[in-house]
Amino acid sequence: MDGLRAWAMAEDGTVLDDRRSDLGSAALDAAGFEPALRALVWDWQLPSPCLVLACGSVGARHGWAEAPYARVPCSPLGDGLTIAPAGDGLDLRIVGGLGQDKPADVMRGEETLIAGYLAGRPDFDGVVCLPGDQTRWAHVSAGEVVSFQTAMTGELFALLASESILRLTLEPGGRDDPAFDAAVGETMSRPEALASRMFALRAEGLLNAMPPETASARLMGLLLGAELAASRPYWLGREVALVGEGDAMRLYARALEGQGVQVTVVPPDPLITAGLTAARARLKGAA
Amino acid sequence: MDGLRAWAMAEDGTVLDDRRSDLGSAALDAAGFEPALRALVWDWQLPSPCLVLACGSVGARHGWAEAPYARVPCSPLGDGLTIAPAGDGLDLRIVGGLGQDKPADVMRGEETLIAGYLAGRPDFDGVVCLPGDQTRWAHVSAGEVVSFQTAMTGELFALLASESILRLTLEPGGRDDPAFDAAVGETMSRPEALASRMFALRAEGLLNAMPPETASARLMGLLLGAELAASRPYWLGREVALVGEGDAMRLYARALEGQGVQVTVVPPDPLITAGLTAARARLKGAA
Repeated sequence: MDGLRAWAMAEDGTVLDDRRSDLGSAALDAAGFEPALRALVWDWQLPSPCLVLACGSVGARHGWAEAPYARVPCSPLGDGLTIAPAGDGLDLRIVGGLGQDKPADVMRGEETLIAGYLAGRPDFDGVVCLPGDQTRWAHVSAGEVVSFQTAMTGELFALLASESILRLTLEPGGRDDPAFDAAVGETMSRPEALASRMFALRAEGLLNAMPPETASARLMGLLLGAELAASRPYWLGREVALVGEGDAMRLYARALEGQGVQVTVVPPDPLITAGLTAARARLKGAA
Repeated sequence: MDGLRAWAMAEDGTVLDDRRSDLGSAALDAAGFEPALRALVWDWQLPSPCLVLACGSVGARHGWAEAPYARVPCSPLGDGLTIAPAGDGLDLRIVGGLGQDKPADVMRGEETLIAGYLAGRPDFDGVVCLPGDQTRWAHVSAGEVVSFQTAMTGELFALLASESILRLTLEPGGRDDPAFDAAVGETMSRPEALASRMFALRAEGLLNAMPPETASARLMGLLLGAELAASRPYWLGREVALVGEGDAMRLYARALEGQGVQVTVVPPDPLITAGLTAARARLKGAA
């Protein structure tokens, strides 16, 4: 989800082309977005005016233009699109993020994927889980996001594995499912253990030569177990649509299924374009 | 505790001079320690041979020479000193760290401060808490370290405040004691809340303009509350000697006293020299 991505889409939502660049919002100031977009799609033959639908951090306070957070409960596409200033021939509309007052929370980008998921399953009543640096758990019912919760598990794991003292005994990406499962169970049943078990990974490496891939799997398990303990009201007894791919998706699915949760794995990319298509349909409906 | 520190000490333990350098074990390989030490004290008139007592990461696997971990329960000075190779005129002895098999844990450096504390209070029966990047909780009784536990609270706070998405809404070192107290209480009573409350600091900044110093105090409170939940068997109903200074010491003392714990604050520096003096006395006793 990092960086800039662009899809050329036909009237009917068909994807004609897609491009991506590492040049994302972290590297751009407000004036930098439009040149970055134009450079990425320089050879596309755009109609004039060309409708550009955007979501994600392009709509953050320091993005191209700020698209406000709509307050849940509301449709994932919230209050509609924010018209943003753009140069010759571009008609730019940005999908706003979602905000929640209590407990305070925000998402930006994920709301479009949720809208995309609802486009295919308009009657879905359950939870959409979107793992990432920040993982979102969203309770969805009657076409609305009812409430949501963010955990920083992905970002925490990356920081601990690359910057903390644990980096000396970890090998990120290492696979040891039994160690992962055991660690999930430890912090799910005793979330307070997280604070005392993390450094034990370093000690196990020094005293007992714990393999680096085991330490890595255990760290992810400890963090994910703590997240599952915190998000229990979201997944317990609910159908969970897990929007993700790769290692993170595999581990979230494994941990949830270990709790007897019915998990449906959904790849994220088609949901983005489906969500943008839904935003466009709303635009037409409003016109 | 980072970097290299050296004290010139008389026979009776009196400190004659002290020096410090940023050039610590993280920046040195095995061959680099002796030149770094000699450069730091180049103008001291050393006897020959000169007894050098050392502790901390100088004795780690990638230190000057490895001084093994003694297994608790044992005296904080464990199995005695490791004689390390050194050049002309230096008689180098390194204090070993402490290790614990279940749960796996290690410390290196803190054992010397504990020995220093016991030198002044040989009959102490209680808990020594040493906040740092890694905080150690040691149960001490009858002159021995019975068990200990490490938490990564300091390191976690520093990483989250400087590298994670929370850096955008935090001001490290900010002071807001009511916010700190409330956050400690939240994760002490519900440790699983840590996973869901951290990102809320970012959301509170975006939605409700939470002041950065409040966000910082809350983050430290959430982390410390989780640590206190994990270390409850250590501090509950025990006298706690809190070895520290500055902000970390103040917040640990505040949080512990909030739980009705009897806390004695002890500055760390005199404990290091007292601990090294105790190591020297043992050396003489053994000779």
